[in-house]
Amino acid sequence: MKMESTSLLDAFRQTTFQLSHHGIRNVQVLKNALEFVDGQLESDYYGHGEIIQDFQGKIAQYLGKKGAVFFPSGTMAQQIALRIWCDRKDLYKVAYHPLCHLEIHEEDGLKVLHHIQPILLADKHRLIQLDDILTMDEDISCLLLELPQREIGGQLPSYEALKSISEYCRQQGIKLHLDGARLFEVLPYYQKTATEVCSLFDSVYVSFYKGIGGVAGAILAGDQDFISESIVWKRRHGGDLISLYPYIISANYYFDDRIEKMQQYYQRAKELTAMFNECHGVSTTPSEPVSNMFHVYFDYSKEKVETVLVEIYEETGVGFTANLQNDGDTKCYFAVTIGDRYEQIPPSVLKTALDSLSAKLIALQ
Amino acid sequence: MKMESTSLLDAFRQTTFQLSHHGIRNVQVLKNALEFVDGQLESDYYGHGEIIQDFQGKIAQYLGKKGAVFFPSGTMAQQIALRIWCDRKDLYKVAYHPLCHLEIHEEDGLKVLHHIQPILLADKHRLIQLDDILTMDEDISCLLLELPQREIGGQLPSYEALKSISEYCRQQGIKLHLDGARLFEVLPYYQKTATEVCSLFDSVYVSFYKGIGGVAGAILAGDQDFISESIVWKRRHGGDLISLYPYIISANYYFDDRIEKMQQYYQRAKELTAMFNECHGVSTTPSEPVSNMFHVYFDYSKEKVETVLVEIYEETGVGFTANLQNDGDTKCYFAVTIGDRYEQIPPSVLKTALDSLSAKLIALQ
Repeated sequence: MKMESTSLLDAFRQTTFQLSHHGIRNVQVLKNALEFVDGQLESDYYGHGEIIQDFQGKIAQYLGKKGAVFFPSGTMAQQIALRIWCDRKDLYKVAYHPLCHLEIHEEDGLKVLHHIQPILLADKHRLIQLDDILTMDEDISCLLLELPQREIGGQLPSYEALKSISEYCRQQGIKLHLDGARLFEVLPYYQKTATEVCSLFDSVYVSFYKGIGGVAGAILAGDQDFISESIVWKRRHGGDLISLYPYIISANYYFDDRIEKMQQYYQRAKELTAMFNECHGVSTTPSEPVSNMFHVYFDYSKEKVETVLVEIYEETGVGFTANLQNDGDTKCYFAVTIGDRYEQIPPSVLKTALDSLSAKLIALQ
Repeated sequence: MKMESTSLLDAFRQTTFQLSHHGIRNVQVLKNALEFVDGQLESDYYGHGEIIQDFQGKIAQYLGKKGAVFFPSGTMAQQIALRIWCDRKDLYKVAYHPLCHLEIHEEDGLKVLHHIQPILLADKHRLIQLDDILTMDEDISCLLLELPQREIGGQLPSYEALKSISEYCRQQGIKLHLDGARLFEVLPYYQKTATEVCSLFDSVYVSFYKGIGGVAGAILAGDQDFISESIVWKRRHGGDLISLYPYIISANYYFDDRIEKMQQYYQRAKELTAMFNECHGVSTTPSEPVSNMFHVYFDYSKEKVETVLVEIYEETGVGFTANLQNDGDTKCYFAVTIGDRYEQIPPSVLKTALDSLSAKLIALQ
């Protein structure tokens, strides 16, 4: 098993073209962002200074919020957002999806550091719906929604469904927090501005190293009181660094470079899912994507598909993924996230790779 | 009052030479560190990868500890160290100095996030001594010592006193943690290696943007179990970033550049305190420094001294400080931290500035 994984990774590393992401995360990513920055520009200083305040102001305005704070990580930003809303209501319960980042990727920081109890809504395979909230037994301070829900292929509620949830939460005095790690990526589907989407939420987190492709870092946005409190918590968490500028400069540079490309990534994701769905034994989740991301499912075991993929990588130079995941014993899947790299694949080469995939999967029968 | 502070700062900014630090904290600090790094070098990835592991290994070895973890901040690293030691003993009490960083600069993160109660030893004007620990009423999990004690001018216990404290703590099952934000800076005074000093401690934090002058970042070092636990806590705090390399590369670059210069900074600090102590109405704490830092005290009010300093800055081009602090109503002081910048001041210019200081203070009488 391990050997085959290694061989998929090895073969992937040899490919000329890759479906996902903007490129390799190397030091050049930072160097490019710094190239046109004057070396004499002074560092931010514990949250103060032009370099941080200008960017915070720019993103606050983009999101339509009164204020914004730059954080080293979304993990820190989101725990703090939920803590502030729990403190306000003196009720240490929040609700979120079972595959929420806070539930599965943060070593239970929310529980251990903040003693906040999460109520898990919906189930692992579907989105939270208004009905899940209506039928919830518990009173909560805050509901967290992730747009799109990454771990299930980037699914998204309709904008109308989102509005209904927002309205209900406001009526009930439940704060609504947006895990917008990939918010920029869903705006083309919603055909809404960030401001419009964020107006449905009391607090918003966005990331600068996913669709934007910066080095690291996040923004937490909300009203002025919320922001003032979050700055205190940022210091408590150890996130109020003397200098955050390496992340801020790269966030700003790649935001400007890529924010207008989100439409293109979304279009390409739609084209590519259509092509995958034409392949024998392959389907995508969502069947038509709502952002730049989706999951590709195979009706075959991971072992069999790995063999097929290695052959395709070697024959066509197109790498689909370095990392296949089991879906039970007989099926498997991988995630696609369209970025700048996709544009480099000649359409004819991509078509050859997908035709080959279909043919090889048919031959497995 | 505010106007005069601004004018001191303005005058300081116009000076050609400055006593303290390595230089202005600007983007060039990062650019210089990146210049000779191959852009193709891959980012660290959530604590994995050569770039982070090599540096952690290098500093662990330098400190004589089994393992080391790179953190975005010392605030995060130290709270986590104390939390681990408290968890081990299931006793949420630690002891430290009343001017400990955790007590005065972290918005009570230790108390609010970790529910750890600090016992304040000694008083604000002196170091913790063995007797303070012997006469402590409370049982504690961990004692934190800061070497040197920054807020009182960088004072330091004798190495013998340090050994006695360490031995007593080991006998009593009290873990000893080193706030070594400026550890590198005191090694020339102790005439000990970092390994020798750190052998007295169970866990050690060091900083890379103080004496070393990097962009930001810290290392926490200890035994392997301690390190494994600290990695879990780092994630909980939101410090396990996808990429910490901007800080790591700069930490490594300036560590190599400046670690051997600590002796020079210490010598210069001794020379400079001698010169200040010859001035009328001026004294330093410590009277002879034990690192690259000390405080300069004036027997005159802040208002009067500001006027004198602005004149000296304008006449000689030498800036002593941008920031005078009150010490009661009739006295004031500022901090000096010797770095690369001191070497740029021609000795004759410095002598003129100090002679002028003495003359102007005499004239105030």
